Amino acid sequence: MERKSFGNMQCPVARTLERVGEWWSILILRDALHGLTRFDQFQKSLDIAPNMLTRRLNSLVESGLLERRQYSERPPRHEYILTDLGRDFRSILVALNTWGNKHFAPEGPSVLLIDSTTGEEAEPVMIDGKSGKRLNSPDFVFAPGPQANEGMKARINFARERAAEAAANDAATTQPATAAPAKPAKAPRKKAAARSA
Amino acid sequence: MERKSFGNMQCPVARTLERVGEWWSILILRDALHGLTRFDQFQKSLDIAPNMLTRRLNSLVESGLLERRQYSERPPRHEYILTDLGRDFRSILVALNTWGNKHFAPEGPSVLLIDSTTGEEAEPVMIDGKSGKRLNSPDFVFAPGPQANEGMKARINFARERAAEAAANDAATTQPATAAPAKPAKAPRKKAAARSA
Repeated sequence: MERKSFGNMQCPVARTLERVGEWWSILILRDALHGLTRFDQFQKSLDIAPNMLTRRLNSLVESGLLERRQYSERPPRHEYILTDLGRDFRSILVALNTWGNKHFAPEGPSVLLIDSTTGEEAEPVMIDGKSGKRLNSPDFVFAPGPQANEGMKARINFARERAAEAAANDAATTQPATAAPAKPAKAPRKKAAARSA
Repeated sequence: MERKSFGNMQCPVARTLERVGEWWSILILRDALHGLTRFDQFQKSLDIAPNMLTRRLNSLVESGLLERRQYSERPPRHEYILTDLGRDFRSILVALNTWGNKHFAPEGPSVLLIDSTTGEEAEPVMIDGKSGKRLNSPDFVFAPGPQANEGMKARINFARERAAEAAANDAATTQPATAAPAKPAKAPRKKAAARSA
């Protein structure tokens, strides 16, 4: 089945998905971030068909996430080393791992991120490096960037209007008496939208 | 082409990929997290074939990421609302967005995360909520969790040994004179590995 190419889409998420390719690629990156480098190591870990593994490794090399490096001349053997771009994929892997542990490991986690200096399990949290605020606060919203085209601006601004409406409806139905007046609560969101439009 | 099911794999990343399904699902979740709820809104945003969109929406409902809710009786119309599980996917979306902006938007970002109270662009950073340390520190390593089976333990511990070797080789080749002695630098990593094995 032919998959539509996301590469021409403006959205950074779509471009990321285009670059990484498919599920196997993410699991190969997972193993590379765990320290695996060689074909037989990936094959053993993933239980993947050799031709499929070759294709996915080549694709990750083409995308600039892995670098192919010869480690033996006789016989000629290569290993696959993460590039800076590939190493930077770690934050996505940590986010996937955290979500998976939280929701899909009812029997308890099988993979943890630990602080090797203390042996303590890490509690991955996303914050804004500038203000230190947690990014799961409703204060943080997506907005069109400086290079957004008209379609992207329309989509995000439309979406934000909808979100504001939904929040207003929620507030009206769930907290009819105790809620603060709706307009002031919405004000910062609207101000930001006007600024970025 | 038949895709191998990752659902029985122990790895939380594999289970997450199994649940979310495929690229379209991630873009639908992106739009839902931006506030879209209705079939025609998703279709307009994604430029996706209606039968494909129906399949992906149904799959996200089955997976528990979206909830289908009737909003009009005549004509009968439904919208798709994020569940708690779906809303929690936001951290993965932010990680994808950040990586995409950093590496695949040479012309400048088209989608930003902003603090709507100040209008400032957020700088997404992952930290350990317990210690406040940034997770991109090499101190943080993956380790087998309490429910890891023997295969998972072997894979992670093997990978960590390899990573430690690679780090030792890097240290030996790149900093022959100025580096601190290699053994003490490795010690915490080994201690943690022994603890979690």
